Order: sequence, then C-alpha cells, then structure tokens
Amino acid sequence: MRIDAPKYTERFGSVRINEVQQVLQLDSGKPRTLPLRENVAVQKIEEDVIKDFEERMAIVIPTKDEKLKLFEGVVSGVPHECLIIVVSNSQRKRVDRFRMERDALRQFCHFTRREALIFHQKDPVIAQALADVGYTGILGEDGLVRHGKAEGMVAAMLMAMVAKKDYVGFIDADNYFPGAVWEYVRCYAAGFSIANSPYAMVRVLWRYKPKVSAGMLFKKWGRVSEITNRCMNSLVSSKSGFETDIIKTGNAGEHAMSMRLAQILTYASGYAVEPQELVSIFEGFGGVLPMAHQIAAKHGVEIFQTETRNPHLHEEKGGHHLLVEMLLPGLGAIYHSPLCEDETRGVIIEELLRQDAIKPGEEPPKPQFIAPLNSIDLKKFATIMAEHMESYSALEEEP
Amino acid sequence: MRIDAPKYTERFGSVRINEVQQVLQLDSGKPRTLPLRENVAVQKIEEDVIKDFEERMAIVIPTKDEKLKLFEGVVSGVPHECLIIVVSNSQRKRVDRFRMERDALRQFCHFTRREALIFHQKDPVIAQALADVGYTGILGEDGLVRHGKAEGMVAAMLMAMVAKKDYVGFIDADNYFPGAVWEYVRCYAAGFSIANSPYAMVRVLWRYKPKVSAGMLFKKWGRVSEITNRCMNSLVSSKSGFETDIIKTGNAGEHAMSMRLAQILTYASGYAVEPQELVSIFEGFGGVLPMAHQIAAKHGVEIFQTETRNPHLHEEKGGHHLLVEMLLPGLGAIYHSPLCEDETRGVIIEELLRQDAIKPGEEPPKPQFIAPLNSIDLKKFATIMAEHMESYSALEEEP
Repeated sequence: MRIDAPKYTERFGSVRINEVQQVLQLDSGKPRTLPLRENVAVQKIEEDVIKDFEERMAIVIPTKDEKLKLFEGVVSGVPHECLIIVVSNSQRKRVDRFRMERDALRQFCHFTRREALIFHQKDPVIAQALADVGYTGILGEDGLVRHGKAEGMVAAMLMAMVAKKDYVGFIDADNYFPGAVWEYVRCYAAGFSIANSPYAMVRVLWRYKPKVSAGMLFKKWGRVSEITNRCMNSLVSSKSGFETDIIKTGNAGEHAMSMRLAQILTYASGYAVEPQELVSIFEGFGGVLPMAHQIAAKHGVEIFQTETRNPHLHEEKGGHHLLVEMLLPGLGAIYHSPLCEDETRGVIIEELLRQDAIKPGEEPPKPQFIAPLNSIDLKKFATIMAEHMESYSALEEEP
Repeated sequence: MRIDAPKYTERFGSVRINEVQQVLQLDSGKPRTLPLRENVAVQKIEEDVIKDFEERMAIVIPTKDEKLKLFEGVVSGVPHECLIIVVSNSQRKRVDRFRMERDALRQFCHFTRREALIFHQKDPVIAQALADVGYTGILGEDGLVRHGKAEGMVAAMLMAMVAKKDYVGFIDADNYFPGAVWEYVRCYAAGFSIANSPYAMVRVLWRYKPKVSAGMLFKKWGRVSEITNRCMNSLVSSKSGFETDIIKTGNAGEHAMSMRLAQILTYASGYAVEPQELVSIFEGFGGVLPMAHQIAAKHGVEIFQTETRNPHLHEEKGGHHLLVEMLLPGLGAIYHSPLCEDETRGVIIEELLRQDAIKPGEEPPKPQFIAPLNSIDLKKFATIMAEHMESYSALEEEP
C-alpha cells in the first residue's frame, strides 16, 4: 500500500504525535526490482512487510449482541495472518447468542483454515486466572470480568499476550464493509512498519463517516470526535504554549498498539477507554509529570494517525442520548487528568453545557481506571491460561 | 483470497455457466509451504497468482460527469498492477470536467507511480483510427464515437488491446467504497485463474446492494437484476428443457472478460450491453445456432459468477423512471434474440406490462448492435494508435 510520509510531527516530551497520513493506494502491487522513483512525500509499504507485521498481530473484535451478518462480515475482512480474538459479551440466556457467534466463527475458520480465539467476557476460567495473579481491577462483585467494552478489551489484550503477539489492534464488530476492516488492519501494519520506537500506536480516522439518511450525506467527522479532539488539543496546546490541532483521533475505536506500549498504559472503563489511552501517554511521557516507564521514555512513544480510503459505514445507534453517553466519559478523562489546567477545563465545561450533557455547576464524571497490564505477573498468568487456550480456539484440527 | 470452489456447472452447448461462488476471505495471507489441509469446497488463490493476472488486465472505468471524489476513490481502489483505462464522456464546455478528471488521475498516478490511460469518448484521433479501419458501427453522424456507455466500453476495449492486455474488466465510477472496487478486481483475477478455457467471463454480484434510506435497509438484489435474470433463465430453460435459476448476473456492470472472448462478441448499445453479452454467448456457442467461432467453441466459453464480501454502495439516481430505462433494453436484447421462443417472450411482455414499461400490444425495442472487435484489422488499428498512446498516458515520466 501507499500512504503519505509523515510530514509533520508534534513533540510533547517523549511523545511524538504524527500528523494525519492519508492512504493513497490500498494495493501497491508487486515489489519492483527497478522501481520508478518514488515520490518523497509517499511511503510505499510492500506486501510482504505488511504481512510480516500482520503475522505478529492480534486483532481484537469486541462484540455484544451484534447482528450475526455484520459480525461474520467483519471477521471475513481481517487479513489471514492476524490472530483474531473475539471477546463477546453477548447474552447466553434465552437465546445463546455467544454460541451462535462461536459457531459462525468456527465455520469460517474451518473453511478458511485460519486461527481465531473466542471467549465470553464472563468466562470463569479467565476471571479465576486474573484473581490468581491479583489483577482484580476489572473483576466485578460476582468475581467475573465486569461488563463494559474496556474490560473486554483488556481481557483480550491479556489473551493476545498469552498468544505471544507483538501487536494488538481493535476493530468494532458493527462495520458493514469487510473491505474497510481489511484496510484498517493494513493501516495498523503500515504504521508499525514505519515506527522508529517499539512503543507505538496507530489510530485510524475515516475519510468520511457516512451519515446515512434519506439522500445520503457523507459527513466528515462525527460530532463526538470533533468535540473530544478540540479538548484534547487544548490540553496539548496548554503545555506546549502553541495552538495545535494535531489530534484528530481522540475517540478512535479503530486503533492498535505495540504490546510493549499496551502493557504500560493505564486504561479507563467504558467509553473513556480510547481518549484515556492518549491521556495516559501524555501523563506518562509528556515530560510534565514523572516518566511512567524509563525504557519507553528513552525510545519515545510514537502516535500515528491514518486516514483511510474507505468511508466508514456502521450501525447507527441512538441520537443525542448516545452523543452524551459517549462524550461525557471521554471529556471526563481529559478533565480529571493532572495535566488539565483551568483553560482546558473551561473548554470542556462549556462544550458539555452546550450539549446539555451536564447542568451548571456540575463536572464530568471521573473515569474508573484500570491498572496497566504489566502490574501483574504476566508469566504466571500465561502459565495458568496456557492449558486452557485450546478451549478458546475456533479452529478444530482434524486428526 | 478464498472463494467457493464451483460446485455446479450448467452446460448450454459449449457454454459452461458456473453457479455463484462466494468470496470467503478477502486476504488469505502468505503462501504456506506446509499448508493446513484445504477444504475441498474452497479454492485458495495465492497473492502472487492474483497479481500475475492483474498485471495482464486492463480495468476500464467509464465515467460521465461523476462526482470527482467518487471517481478518485474508485481509481484508488484498483490494484496497482492493472492498467487503468478511463473512458470519459464528461462535459468539456462551460466547466471542463474531463480536464478535472485527467488532472485528478495524473496527480494520483504521479504519487502512486502507476500507469493509466484516459481519453474522452469524443476524442477525434480515436474516431479517425476507427474510421480508417472501417469500424464505423460506433461512430455517429459527426464522425466521432457515439454517446453511450456501451460505445465507450467498446472504444476502451480497443485501447486495452493496443496496450496488449489479455484481460479487460469494468468498474463503474459511482462506487463509494474503494475497498469494494479492490475486491471486484480480485474476483476477476480469481475467476480467470481457475478458468479452464481462454474464453472466459467473470460477472460480479453483490452480497447486498444496500438500498440506502432512513433506517438503512440492505436489500438483496435490485429489481432490475431480478427481472432480467428471470427472463434470461427462462431462455436457458427453454433450450435445456430443465428449469434453472443459474443466471444471477444478467445486468452485472462489474464484469470482466478474457480479450480472446471480448473480441468475438456482438455488443449492444446503451443499457443492453451487459445482458447482450450473455445473449451473444448463448447464440454463438449454445449449440442451437451455428457456432460463432470454431476455436472458442472447441475450448468452450466459461462464465463465472462471483458474490462479493463487500456490499455495494453507489449513487442512487432516479426511481421508477430509471428502472424502466434500464430494464427495457436488457429485456429487448433477450426478446429479439433468435433463441427466444414464445414462452420467454410471454414472460418478458408480462414483466414489462407489470412495470408499466410498455403498453399492451407493444414490444421492447430491438437493440442496436455493435459488431465484434475482431471484425476489423486490429493490427492496423494498433499501428495507427501506437504513436498517439503517450498522449493518453496519465503518468508523465520525469527525465
């Protein structure tokens, strides 16, 4: 594939935030022995390089009672080399939707000869293993992993670590276009291939997020993203002393991290998870607070933002209510960061009042934090889980 | 990629019509030295095989005053190895839209280092070359190539021949998803790679053709296709004596042919072009009428129908009016075929009356035919065009 070379990089302590890079070409063909001179503004990433990175990557698909046709389509779009990890929080009573997902995944893996793992978020074995290593922060009162997308993502990242993957990427299960899913994963691989640091993150933004209604309007940016990005940029600006609009992916659900980075970040519950990742990076490596991890600080943390060729078409769920529900936690993560000063707090309060998301005098909620994965004995966790891994595999090998 | 192996093939004289094959996986990863046992029902096509076929393929994009953003997106989705041939019938007066398209294509080719040709349907050089070799069937009274998608397609096929391509595929310019375009081309390549005859055609159908409206409904099949397929199947059934619904792609705009097949078919003007291709094959090689080409008859003509993973999302243009406008010529092509007997004629008349497309007692229009490309001296045409080819190239090589 071909993408823009990173033309501008904003620095924030040890953090390098790259400007948005556009995908120019989904498929750049065979490697050439005698290539035409490449344009300096363009990065060509060869097919085998992409596949090498895909081989080292787990793709996590969190799902909850999603339409089976959409789920199947998303799975079919993930490049073959990646290990698919489905973390499902779908219902098991009345209709066992989890079983339907597992059956669909098994069928797919059977016919395409590929590996995948699937587990339910309320799986007792995983909960027990987490309890055994003292990672109780994502466990609820029932002793099982709590509900919530973030908790599922964290559990899936742990599984990716047990499977010895070097990268982990996330794809939402409600995407209508398998071809868009395929592109997201390539964007992840492309980002990691050009990263200079082993502590890297790739966040995807969509060329257009089609707002599907009568007449079909392709609207650039969702409202939530727009507001989150503005507040995030205010935070960065206040520290650097220069206005910036570098952050375009504050809410990116489609994103990926090197495992080494994924292990050292503090996460947040619910919809705060994606913005909190950036906040954690700024807090840990922005140079304002003490460095969170010496080796990572030395290498630097790199953030790539990639704009896809494909538009994004997903299930529309709810209107203003959802906007508030998604906006509030993300802005809460920024608002309650020790980095956040009065000006940015003012911007956040103003936005939330304008959206009727809070009442005058109120503050956004403080996020519920999830400790970094490396706060536990990962080897011990892997040892406990190792003997159960086969039960999560979707590809049953014939004798 | 992985697609269904062809499970059933209907034979009609020397014509082999394969049942619909579904795409299982867009990206089947690296070639394996020690592969897991493949399922017998699945065909895995390796990346390098696909790219080898793409290298020998021209992708024709007919366009007419299409939104530039859509045009650019479609172009960006075509795999790099293919030669893009844009045939534009866009306006040149007032706003020179053709120039805008050429500029956009040049910019794209410049940054992605790829080859493409672009010409205007009313290009006087091409018209003169056609006149010189006596291929006047697609020329209008002004001596230039007539308006109409079919005429543009035929001119583009001739250009693909001059460029010495072995395969030619068509992609409409009004597609919202570059990732879907990419998949179509892979379906073409996959089809040719499993074909046993050098006379092969691949026709694409969409998993869903999303009917975009409030609430977003993904409706399977368009109305026009449904009716055309029914009439086409009636034609085939009447000859074989067995009911069949094998034809699912009567109107497929996304389709590709080996050049050897493309050269020997009779085409039709306007919206009849895609159904007429099938009718021409049935007439020429169905064994009812004399064989149209002895070598092709010996090899047999193979038709593949591939159902994509990606849904199809394109510009909606018009309602019932368009339905009639698209339906009438296609059914006309079937109705006026010497193969068409009374029963199928009855089915066609019935459908057209139901759609208010004709009045009682009327018949659908007879298609305007375009002679096969091999009716001219192709070598002479190529010689005339050879010295002009550079002027159609979108990639200007720096010294």
